[in-house]
Amino acid sequence: MALIVQKYGGSSVGNLERIANVARRVARTYDEGNKVVVVVSAMAGETDRLIDTAKAIRDTPNEREMDVLVSTGEQVSMALLAITLDSMGYRAKSYCGWQIPIVTTDAYCAARIEDVRREKIAADLDEGRIVIVAGFQGIDCHGNITTLGRGGSDTSAVAVAAALKADRCEIYTDVDGIYTTDPNITNKARKLKKVAFEEMLEMASVGAKVLYIRAVELGMTQGVPIMVLSSFSDTEGTLVTQEDENMEKELVTAVTCSTKEAKITLSGVPDRPGVASRIFVPLAEANIVVDMIIQNASADGIADISFTIPSADLSKALKILEDAKDFLEVKEITGANDIAKVSIIGAGMRSHAGVAAKMFTTLADERINIEMISTSEIKISCVIKKKYAELAVRALHENFDLDMKT
Amino acid sequence: MALIVQKYGGSSVGNLERIANVARRVARTYDEGNKVVVVVSAMAGETDRLIDTAKAIRDTPNEREMDVLVSTGEQVSMALLAITLDSMGYRAKSYCGWQIPIVTTDAYCAARIEDVRREKIAADLDEGRIVIVAGFQGIDCHGNITTLGRGGSDTSAVAVAAALKADRCEIYTDVDGIYTTDPNITNKARKLKKVAFEEMLEMASVGAKVLYIRAVELGMTQGVPIMVLSSFSDTEGTLVTQEDENMEKELVTAVTCSTKEAKITLSGVPDRPGVASRIFVPLAEANIVVDMIIQNASADGIADISFTIPSADLSKALKILEDAKDFLEVKEITGANDIAKVSIIGAGMRSHAGVAAKMFTTLADERINIEMISTSEIKISCVIKKKYAELAVRALHENFDLDMKT
Repeated sequence: MALIVQKYGGSSVGNLERIANVARRVARTYDEGNKVVVVVSAMAGETDRLIDTAKAIRDTPNEREMDVLVSTGEQVSMALLAITLDSMGYRAKSYCGWQIPIVTTDAYCAARIEDVRREKIAADLDEGRIVIVAGFQGIDCHGNITTLGRGGSDTSAVAVAAALKADRCEIYTDVDGIYTTDPNITNKARKLKKVAFEEMLEMASVGAKVLYIRAVELGMTQGVPIMVLSSFSDTEGTLVTQEDENMEKELVTAVTCSTKEAKITLSGVPDRPGVASRIFVPLAEANIVVDMIIQNASADGIADISFTIPSADLSKALKILEDAKDFLEVKEITGANDIAKVSIIGAGMRSHAGVAAKMFTTLADERINIEMISTSEIKISCVIKKKYAELAVRALHENFDLDMKT
Repeated sequence: MALIVQKYGGSSVGNLERIANVARRVARTYDEGNKVVVVVSAMAGETDRLIDTAKAIRDTPNEREMDVLVSTGEQVSMALLAITLDSMGYRAKSYCGWQIPIVTTDAYCAARIEDVRREKIAADLDEGRIVIVAGFQGIDCHGNITTLGRGGSDTSAVAVAAALKADRCEIYTDVDGIYTTDPNITNKARKLKKVAFEEMLEMASVGAKVLYIRAVELGMTQGVPIMVLSSFSDTEGTLVTQEDENMEKELVTAVTCSTKEAKITLSGVPDRPGVASRIFVPLAEANIVVDMIIQNASADGIADISFTIPSADLSKALKILEDAKDFLEVKEITGANDIAKVSIIGAGMRSHAGVAAKMFTTLADERINIEMISTSEIKISCVIKKKYAELAVRALHENFDLDMKT
C-alpha cells in the first residue's frame, strides 16, 4: 500500500465528463490498495472568467478580494469530483485550503505556502476515505483567503505530498511527460523516463512549461518524487526525482528554447564602479526581471552592456533607460525583440568537458551567430536571432544524440 | 449614527451593473454617517446553475459536498461587491460564513444558525470599513461548510443584525414592500407602512413570499426591526416590527391566497381513539406536511376526515393512504387539487368580534362555498374552489376596507 497524491489540472477537470474520467482514475488507484489524496485546479477557463469579471469592474481589483473571488474555482471542482466519487460508491471528502489548513504568507495573489497540517487528511485516509484538496489556495495567519499565483496547484500538490510523506506526487496534465525538446519543433523528440530535480529546474527556468519552478523546488527540498502524466491516456509518464547513481547518465538531457525574451544593449557606458547598479536598480524597482547580463571588457574606459528581459517588458524598460540616459552617461540604447534563447541541459555536464565547445560548433556549422552566452553547472544558454531558433534546436538535438532512434 | 444591516437578494446583484447599483446605495448609507454591514445572496440564477450541475452527476448529490459547491455563489457576489466598493474609494472587506464565523447546526443544506460572532465585524466597523457578509452559509462545529436552505440569506441578515444589535435590518428585494394583497389579483392593493411580526408570520405561512418565516421569527425573538425595500427604486418600504400602541389598528391587515395546496378526504372512518394517529403518522414519516385538519362529528360511530397538504405531495399521499386503506378501515379516499386557501390576517382581530362572520358573509354573498375553515388568534383561513380564489380575494379586500382610496 502506498500513499499517492494526484494533482489534476484545469483541462483534466474541464467538464463533467472529464471529472468522471478523473474519478475513475482516482478510484482505480484506490482499488489497487493505495491511500489517495487528490489536488484539483479550477475547471479550465474558470479562473480566467472570474479574473475577467473582476477586471471589468477595475483594471487593478483589490487583491484580497481577488483571492476570495478566484478561490471559488477550485472549490467548485473539488465538490463536483467529491459528488462524482460519492455517486460511484466511494467515500470522498473535499477540503478548501482554509479547512486543512494550508497556511501561507499574506501576499495576496502570490502567497507562499508556509505549512500544511496533515491531521485531518491523515485521519480521513485512515478511515478509508479519498481526500480531495483545493489546489492554488490557502489561508494566511489572519484568517484571510490567499492564492498562490499561476501554477499554484502543482505547488499545493507537492506541499501536501511532503506533509503526508507521500510515496509520490502524480501531476496529471494535458501532456504525457517531459520531452527531450518541444515535440512541435522536431518529431524526433523523445519522452524521458526520469529527470533529475536540478535538470527540471533549469528546464523550467528556460521555458519548459510542464511543471512550475516552485513545485519542483519543493519536491527537491522535501524529497518528494514527482511523476508527470497525462490524464487522457495510460502511457507511462516522466519521473522527476533525486539524481541517483543508476540514472542514465546522458551528457545532455534536453534542449529548450524560449522566444519570449528581448535584448537591450547600452553602448558607450563609462567603465567605473557603480555603473551597473545605476542601470539595474531602476529596472528592479519597476519589477522587470533581468536574466542574462554581459559586459564587454574595455580598453579605453568605455564598455558595452547587454542584457535580456521578458519581451513583454521591453518598451517599459527602454522608456526607463531613455529617461535616465544622461544620468547614466550612456551613448546609445538599443532594444531587440527578434531573439531566442536556446539552452542545453544535463546533469552529465558536470563530469564532462567540451560540452560548451560542442554546442558552439554545432551552431557555427549551421552558420548561426551567437549574441550572448550564459552558463550554469548543468546548463548552457545561447542567445541567437529568433529566425534560427528551430534550426538550432533540431541541430543540437541531433548532435547531442537525443533524436529518437527509428 | 446608526448601525444598519442591508441584505441584497440574487436579482439585486444579478450582474455587474446591478452590483454597481447596490454599491452606490451602500455608499450613500455609509456617507450619511452610518455603520453598514451588507449581506449578499448569490447572483440570480447562480445557485440553480450549481445545483443543476451537481444533479447532472446524480439526482441526490452528497449533501456535504452540495454545500461546498453552492456556497461559492455568495462568495463570488460578496467579492465582486467588495471590489466595486474598493474601486469607488470605500474600504470594504468581505467575509464568508466560516470567517465570521456564523456557526450553524450540521444539517447540510438545511442548517440552522446557532451563533454569529460579532468581534471581527465590530472591529472593522470601528475602523470605518464597510463589511460584506455572505448570506445563506455558515460553518458547523466540525469545520464543515453548511447552507441554510432557500431564503437563508434573509435569516443570515437578521441574525447578523441581532448579533450586532443593529438599529435595523433592511431587506432589499425586487418588490418594494408588503402589500395588503397580491397586486396581481387587484390593482387596489395598498403597500403597508408597518406590519407586526406576528402578522408577517401568518402571512408568510399562507403564501406571501416576500420574507421567509425563519427570518421573521428571528427578528421577532431578537427584537430586530426589518424593513422590506426595493433595490430598484427609492420608494418607502414596509417596516416589520413589534406591535405597538401607535400602530394603525386595522381590523384586517392583509388578504392572502395560496393555490398550492390539495385536499384529501377520508369518508367512513371508524370514530375511535387512535384513528387519527394511524392516518397521519405514515404521512409525517414520508415528510408530507399536513396543514388544516377537519373531522366531522358523527352520530353512528363513523366520521369523515379532511385535510390539506402541499399539492406537489398529493399523489404520494394518496398512494400511502390507498396502500393502508384496509388497515385504516376507511370506506373511501378522495383527493382534490382544485382548491385554494384564502386567508385574512390582522392583529386587530384579537379585540374585535364578528370578523369571522363578516368573512363568511362576504364569501356567501359571492355564492362561494366554504369547504374547510381554520382559525388562529390573528388569522382566518377558508378553503374554497380554486376558480373562485381571485373573486374571493377581491371581495374580502373591498369589504374589509383595504382597497386603495382613489
